[in-house]
Amino acid sequence: MTGARELHLNLFIYPGGHHEAARRHGSSDTARLLDIRFYQDLARRAEAAAFDGIFLADGPALADNVRYASRFRLEPLTWLSAVAAATERIGLIGTASTTYTEPYNLARQFASLDHLSAGRAGWNIVTTGAPQAAANFGLDAHPVHAERYERARDFLEAVTKLWDSWEDGALVADQAGGLFADTDRIHAVDHEGPLLSVKGPLNIPRSPQGRPVYVQAGSSPDGRALAARYAETVFTAHQTLESAQEFYADLKRRAARLGRDPGQLLVLPGISPFVASTEAEARRLHEQFNSLTQPEYSLELLHRLLGIRLSQEELDGPVPRELIGTEGERGDHSRFRLVLGIIEREELTVRQLLHRLAGARGHRVIAGTPEQVADQLSQWFEQGAADGFNVMPPWLPGGFEVFADEVVPILRRRGLFRHAYTGSTLREHYGLPRPGSRYAARAAPSVV
Amino acid sequence: MTGARELHLNLFIYPGGHHEAARRHGSSDTARLLDIRFYQDLARRAEAAAFDGIFLADGPALADNVRYASRFRLEPLTWLSAVAAATERIGLIGTASTTYTEPYNLARQFASLDHLSAGRAGWNIVTTGAPQAAANFGLDAHPVHAERYERARDFLEAVTKLWDSWEDGALVADQAGGLFADTDRIHAVDHEGPLLSVKGPLNIPRSPQGRPVYVQAGSSPDGRALAARYAETVFTAHQTLESAQEFYADLKRRAARLGRDPGQLLVLPGISPFVASTEAEARRLHEQFNSLTQPEYSLELLHRLLGIRLSQEELDGPVPRELIGTEGERGDHSRFRLVLGIIEREELTVRQLLHRLAGARGHRVIAGTPEQVADQLSQWFEQGAADGFNVMPPWLPGGFEVFADEVVPILRRRGLFRHAYTGSTLREHYGLPRPGSRYAARAAPSVV
Repeated sequence: MTGARELHLNLFIYPGGHHEAARRHGSSDTARLLDIRFYQDLARRAEAAAFDGIFLADGPALADNVRYASRFRLEPLTWLSAVAAATERIGLIGTASTTYTEPYNLARQFASLDHLSAGRAGWNIVTTGAPQAAANFGLDAHPVHAERYERARDFLEAVTKLWDSWEDGALVADQAGGLFADTDRIHAVDHEGPLLSVKGPLNIPRSPQGRPVYVQAGSSPDGRALAARYAETVFTAHQTLESAQEFYADLKRRAARLGRDPGQLLVLPGISPFVASTEAEARRLHEQFNSLTQPEYSLELLHRLLGIRLSQEELDGPVPRELIGTEGERGDHSRFRLVLGIIEREELTVRQLLHRLAGARGHRVIAGTPEQVADQLSQWFEQGAADGFNVMPPWLPGGFEVFADEVVPILRRRGLFRHAYTGSTLREHYGLPRPGSRYAARAAPSVV
Repeated sequence: MTGARELHLNLFIYPGGHHEAARRHGSSDTARLLDIRFYQDLARRAEAAAFDGIFLADGPALADNVRYASRFRLEPLTWLSAVAAATERIGLIGTASTTYTEPYNLARQFASLDHLSAGRAGWNIVTTGAPQAAANFGLDAHPVHAERYERARDFLEAVTKLWDSWEDGALVADQAGGLFADTDRIHAVDHEGPLLSVKGPLNIPRSPQGRPVYVQAGSSPDGRALAARYAETVFTAHQTLESAQEFYADLKRRAARLGRDPGQLLVLPGISPFVASTEAEARRLHEQFNSLTQPEYSLELLHRLLGIRLSQEELDGPVPRELIGTEGERGDHSRFRLVLGIIEREELTVRQLLHRLAGARGHRVIAGTPEQVADQLSQWFEQGAADGFNVMPPWLPGGFEVFADEVVPILRRRGLFRHAYTGSTLREHYGLPRPGSRYAARAAPSVV
């Protein structure tokens, strides 16, 4: 990239919005949660604001608490393919699990998404935290953290080879000469990892981006190691500038230590903005959403995050620290530490803590004027805490529209965000290079 | 269905066209084989002709002969999702393998396709014939035919339960009352089959059609048994009226024996039409395509179908029947018998046989005037051989356009094909009922 450093923005779409009570608020559009046009409209809106990408979470199991909150799952590959057809430039980042898919199937689907979107696919690589997924796949138990990460590494090696298996130009389609594909440029990958064996080649030519942009979200030590080696953008949750700075520096350092250019590993924390014309109004709006939360739901979330079961009678007492389990028992290590950090820094009642988590399950909530929100983003961007943000609107579509209409123009005036796309692929939006195929027999650069 | 019986038409899309030399013919559009807009245009064209659906084949491995013919694979779920966004009424039938996917993942993706297309999804259920798929999934060997069919039955039971797991109306999204989903109407499926164990429930609400239309294509005894039990439409290959009649009668009889309404199992053979204004011109066109075939490719296809390896020197001699293997060695039993039937009925040179197979790998090729093609279709439809057809254009897009422009109007004048859609889902186009959820606690019909 040349010129001044600019920040990157994804719209992270959660059906109905990120605040756990979003669907109970009058400004949410809840009639269209399963209507693809709702998501196509959102993506077009984000594209009009020149966002880098949209982002869909995923997990192959039904959340326990669907009784109270919009916790079904849109399947990202199909959903993003339909969004691709309604947009032209915005990136399309879908979550998929290395624990519960097969490398060959996943490689084909992302290559197809990249083809049909003309180079806009991103893959958010997850190992799946929810233990209930295991029983949907005939497993007695969810593989433990270390096992999942071992498979993730193996899986990444396998699919990267598959995406390299057709060199550029292998598709010839030569009408006169009779050659459809130059099979000298299509390679079996013969991957033999500790857990996975994949022969290849892929059955679809190399896609516009070579492979999808690799996105990663784990912040545990295993997660950081995986991100440092493979990720091109990282999605992460931080409540404080200091925590985000520590993570940012650590990840860039780890990448550099592996010989990578730290500038090609973008750190994009999640932020959930409540924007209004005065700070008081923004806070009122936030409180209004919090007042719609249902303790049955929030206490269940707390149990998942910290391992403590509390009753509704305990809502206005202090958080009973002695009941908190140890990190080792939790699936999501980094989120556990994040919530523990809130408890240690602040004197909160259980209800107050639940409200802090209601916004975006631990991601940072910012309530303020457009200027104040822009100030916060600028500060993190300029003080080594972020290369941009995953914007997690509390409710949809309004919670995103106000951000796009009011905050984005300020970031532009400050020279921090693009006015229009300059590229057409997600890699180009992020300033990331297009990888070559490892099998390409190019003239090696001279080392003499 | 009320009124006169009407036939059903799918457009079966093979990248570049079904004739193996299509891409070498000047009228093919080969520059857009990986361009989603090419397929969206085709689907819109088929929708303008009020076709029931478009159909995409699939297999999770690269064909050996991609050197000579357009044999890469568009991944159907992603591809059809993008086509859904560009169309409104036409059905979207995608092939997916019960051998090389996980029931939970497949169920989610088809449910999503059905949601995002507002009820237009169809699933062509295959067990995967190509043995080279195994090594892409870490298997030492491709499971044998009987094993694949055992898994297919188990798989169908599991996914059908998953698609039933949310009753209609389970999604409440009640703003005032606080209930998002009525968990009394969401069911774990607890499937424990001989090979598969799937807990459920699915993580997405019941889709517009309840579940995708079940399409099946195996014509072996195991394939017929599976089709009779589960399929709602069957795709099949026949060279002669008699063979198609035998298959049609057998399948309807098998369905009736299982207590099913045979009218809800539609038999749709493949046909590949060369249409021109005179019969001589149509035959010339067909020969022109055949003259572009490449023996390297065709002989390889023959080896796959019959197990015999011949050299180019043998092209103008008779087919050496003594070299033909036995049915048991072939993956595709019914195709083996079909080709054997051609050899037994006719005195063909090897080259002539290869030309017979070049059209659509054994599906029936009809070369003639629009009236002649319409006559052939009418005859099969009226004489108990077909409920409609999978139209397999030799080349694209022209090979389809001439069928839509010249043949379809004749079928309409004869009262055999709709002038416009009367329904909006694929089930409605086919005249198939929407299944209820097995878990729905409806008042049981009185049996007294």
